[in-house]
Amino acid sequence: MAVRGAPAIGATGAYAFVLGCQAMQEFREEEIDVLKNKIVGARPTAKDLETFVIELHEFVMREKSISLPPLVTLARSLADESKEECRLIGEQAKSLIRDDMGVLTHCNAGALATVDYGTALAPIRFAHYEGKKFKVFVDETRPRLQGMLTAWELAQEGIDHEIIVDNAAGFFMQQGKIQLVITGTDRVIRDGTVTNKIGTLEKAIVAHHFGIPVYIAMPWTTFDPNLIDSEQIPIEFRSAEEVNEIHGETSKITISPLGSPASNPAFDITPPEFITGYITKDGILKAEELYPFYVDQINNNN
Amino acid sequence: MAVRGAPAIGATGAYAFVLGCQAMQEFREEEIDVLKNKIVGARPTAKDLETFVIELHEFVMREKSISLPPLVTLARSLADESKEECRLIGEQAKSLIRDDMGVLTHCNAGALATVDYGTALAPIRFAHYEGKKFKVFVDETRPRLQGMLTAWELAQEGIDHEIIVDNAAGFFMQQGKIQLVITGTDRVIRDGTVTNKIGTLEKAIVAHHFGIPVYIAMPWTTFDPNLIDSEQIPIEFRSAEEVNEIHGETSKITISPLGSPASNPAFDITPPEFITGYITKDGILKAEELYPFYVDQINNNN
Repeated sequence: MAVRGAPAIGATGAYAFVLGCQAMQEFREEEIDVLKNKIVGARPTAKDLETFVIELHEFVMREKSISLPPLVTLARSLADESKEECRLIGEQAKSLIRDDMGVLTHCNAGALATVDYGTALAPIRFAHYEGKKFKVFVDETRPRLQGMLTAWELAQEGIDHEIIVDNAAGFFMQQGKIQLVITGTDRVIRDGTVTNKIGTLEKAIVAHHFGIPVYIAMPWTTFDPNLIDSEQIPIEFRSAEEVNEIHGETSKITISPLGSPASNPAFDITPPEFITGYITKDGILKAEELYPFYVDQINNNN
Repeated sequence: MAVRGAPAIGATGAYAFVLGCQAMQEFREEEIDVLKNKIVGARPTAKDLETFVIELHEFVMREKSISLPPLVTLARSLADESKEECRLIGEQAKSLIRDDMGVLTHCNAGALATVDYGTALAPIRFAHYEGKKFKVFVDETRPRLQGMLTAWELAQEGIDHEIIVDNAAGFFMQQGKIQLVITGTDRVIRDGTVTNKIGTLEKAIVAHHFGIPVYIAMPWTTFDPNLIDSEQIPIEFRSAEEVNEIHGETSKITISPLGSPASNPAFDITPPEFITGYITKDGILKAEELYPFYVDQINNNN
């Protein structure tokens, strides 16, 4: 958790792969496979990690060389592409945000979770740069309180926002204070099923009930075109301590009674029926458009 | 917040009224009205407070006396009735809980929130006493983490339970781990609309989506038969500090960045369409049965 956020994990994984190669004496396939699996296995849910590392792994296997300069160049270009993709996500979706809107976001899908700009926060940032006046409702996002990172980013930009507990989004939706939900994602599978920070499923169901659109900001590195069965999405369970303890800068507080266990799934799975659209660098797509669009892209690139 | 939980607030309010009378020199209507309004206004959302205090206030006005012995007797009998009502709620609803179930509860509606037994926790307690094996999923219930009180109560009884963050209930529902939701309530109005701890609305909507029944454990002191318009339910907003700071036994941690405001509604409003039944001492009623049943009771008592 020194690095978090699917695209940031991906870019960091790419550099980790480069550093791993640097530590090797010579090109040896088995050792490089071990390196790849170790890095990819560090965080099972976010697809970007696999996407980035596989790209470097394939390059090394093709070249049969662990010569560093081309590896560094490739890692850097992947990171730069990721940053540019976030910028385009912002440009594509900034028009979703209109004056006087309330915009809910969950977790942190900002610059701190990506190479820059963020995914969900990119449209919010760019709408703000255009002078639009709106308010962002920031879910605190227990257990790890990533909403505080979002609040910090918004405060840096001077974007109007309010932190709310994760229990309160439904209340503000019912009161008509929220007109739009935008989140990031850790993995989108072929049919558009979204894996994202725990709580996204609840927010999406509740927003759907109130007729509020839900958009997922998604770099293509997060897309998992080959996964069809949502039951095969790996969901990381993290330690009970994340629930039972709150960490401050210099101290921690235990909030749970002794002897009470906690269960801590870090992500959940939101079916496409609750998602209004997927914000990609190429435009805002519907669930059923994702896979055909992706295949077309691949074909055009080859 | 030294006292919390609608029935506990009600019983405490009754004794507060007695203490207020004790501090008076003589029976003076205006002074007694001021006392009543001051106590009732201390917590606007929970109906029980008003119910308990009005009963004592009417008694004093009828007797035109603040003589303590009969007042103490009345306050004690109201508290005893409240305890007995919780016991009956437990008896009426324990059969809802079956072996191998997962039962979700939100906030604390246990002995710590009532005179004894609890409302939502009474059926859970009594099902456990009968030897049923089930697991309680305990929402931590931010911002004030009343779920930890629930966890503590369940641990005392040796009832199997797991604490989860408020974001995770939907995940466990989707996974088929939760078959029943039971919560308490702070106020139920004529049509069955439920006011309860912030987050209840989200849990009820999500449970409804997954076809999981939601029961509200309700003493009649929580019923507000004269309130028809849910928009007139008073919702208490509490301080931003409850969101921004976590308090331990001896220290506190600030979790939010400097300069980020927070908004903190303490309760939300759940429409009757999401409630399967209302557990009363007289049985489990449907929303549309509540008011007619209440009127019948009043007529039978007169």
